[in-house]
Amino acid sequence: MCFGGLMGGSYVHGYSRRENERLQDQAGTLAELLHRDTWYPPGSRVLEAGCGVGAQTVTLARRSPGARFASVDVAADSLAQARWRARQAELANVEFVQADIFALPFAPESFDHVFVCFVLEHLSQPVRALVSLGRLLRTGGTITAIEGDHGSAFFYPDSRMARRAIQCLIALQRQSGGDALVGRRLYPLLVEAGFDGVRVDPRMVYVDSSRPDLVDGFSRRTFTAMIEGVRQAAIGAGLIDAQSFDAGVRDLYRTTEVDGAFCYTFFKGTGQKLARDDHGAAPVE
Amino acid sequence: MCFGGLMGGSYVHGYSRRENERLQDQAGTLAELLHRDTWYPPGSRVLEAGCGVGAQTVTLARRSPGARFASVDVAADSLAQARWRARQAELANVEFVQADIFALPFAPESFDHVFVCFVLEHLSQPVRALVSLGRLLRTGGTITAIEGDHGSAFFYPDSRMARRAIQCLIALQRQSGGDALVGRRLYPLLVEAGFDGVRVDPRMVYVDSSRPDLVDGFSRRTFTAMIEGVRQAAIGAGLIDAQSFDAGVRDLYRTTEVDGAFCYTFFKGTGQKLARDDHGAAPVE
Repeated sequence: MCFGGLMGGSYVHGYSRRENERLQDQAGTLAELLHRDTWYPPGSRVLEAGCGVGAQTVTLARRSPGARFASVDVAADSLAQARWRARQAELANVEFVQADIFALPFAPESFDHVFVCFVLEHLSQPVRALVSLGRLLRTGGTITAIEGDHGSAFFYPDSRMARRAIQCLIALQRQSGGDALVGRRLYPLLVEAGFDGVRVDPRMVYVDSSRPDLVDGFSRRTFTAMIEGVRQAAIGAGLIDAQSFDAGVRDLYRTTEVDGAFCYTFFKGTGQKLARDDHGAAPVE
Repeated sequence: MCFGGLMGGSYVHGYSRRENERLQDQAGTLAELLHRDTWYPPGSRVLEAGCGVGAQTVTLARRSPGARFASVDVAADSLAQARWRARQAELANVEFVQADIFALPFAPESFDHVFVCFVLEHLSQPVRALVSLGRLLRTGGTITAIEGDHGSAFFYPDSRMARRAIQCLIALQRQSGGDALVGRRLYPLLVEAGFDGVRVDPRMVYVDSSRPDLVDGFSRRTFTAMIEGVRQAAIGAGLIDAQSFDAGVRDLYRTTEVDGAFCYTFFKGTGQKLARDDHGAAPVE
């Protein structure tokens, strides 16, 4: 249960055209926020590591129609959805590959750019993954990493129960070896993995009732839906009782009323692979 | 203990020129973030309500040299500092007035613009204050409000003790009738006070070691210094024991090391005063 799937809308056949367009519009607002400054030149080879159901793939590949994408995921069912999305979007510049991020079937230095989005949060060894990805980059190539941070969420009216419900998702992700607070440490992760010129830029989603598309598309259908999605797991794991969890979710919905507000921050980081000899001569800011 | 005083550096005579310049540079980075889009046309009359020690006054008046400012504060000692700052900055377009924000000595509709920064956080009746300020605005005039939100702070490494220390400041501000979480509710406050076309824009300060001016100027000398400033009050009020508070402050300083990160969000809101008759015809977004 994470942003990767939710942001592209659900994978359900038989949506009405109108519903589909509405979901696309909502995803579009966030895609603009996250991807507006990502563009790859014609002819460049781009590795999308951990494409999931392809929610970001469509945006990426459309924005850089001259680049060739290899979009990789370990899960066959996610890849099937990604392929379906790519067909719907009539993308001709994406190849999908099923593989583990730690054992990718590509030669060293075979990509100009690496893109990784909503993936590090699931990994117990994110630096190891970034180092592996770095090996696939040519010298001078770049990496772009985007992650959320569930601890960045705050809202009005504030609510202890809502914070407890969010904490359940954070705890569950930790139990499964991930880190739902990974966004805030994107900078040290990229630096530790050996990238140069690392720059991290926060992207806050700020929602109040003057922005009704985000009230519905982000506060309700993305963030609160994601929290609701772990109800059974959280209660089953003994992290919270049903009554408290439901009160927390009610309080999250309360923030979508006319006097409410909601804040969440994504982090976008970029870095470059320099040749070993370049390291000593790298510009120091 | 709040941003109003800290952001302009301390009011201490006898600073070396070099130290003074360094403090100005640090304040400059934040001033740019908060005030870059605030400019008042020549001849306009601007009320700065709650100018405190004048930290924002200097930036405001310099950016709009043709506008005439009335900068008001209730505290005589703060005003003395503000006047000193204004003299240092050789400002010729500011008049300082000592008065209560709820009993301002100005005729209705005597200002084109109102500016209020780091003030609502201290008030138990922020809407009443905004309504009073609105009365002083001419029809068509604008209000600009800027506030922080101490609940917006998050950092790496995360630390329960650091969060507890921050919570002390939030609790103390609540005990004195204020709200250190006011930033997130700036939108509903401005709407409730009757302003039209309200727009709120978050301004996040993101700090990692690639931004050394902010590591020192914001994480250390502004935010953590502000938390340290309530040590005695927090312990005296029985909110925390000394050992825990000191551990929290240590953990806040820990976020300024080379692998650390720190996030804090300010909120900037604007609205307009429409004539009563305009309300029905106000454009609906």
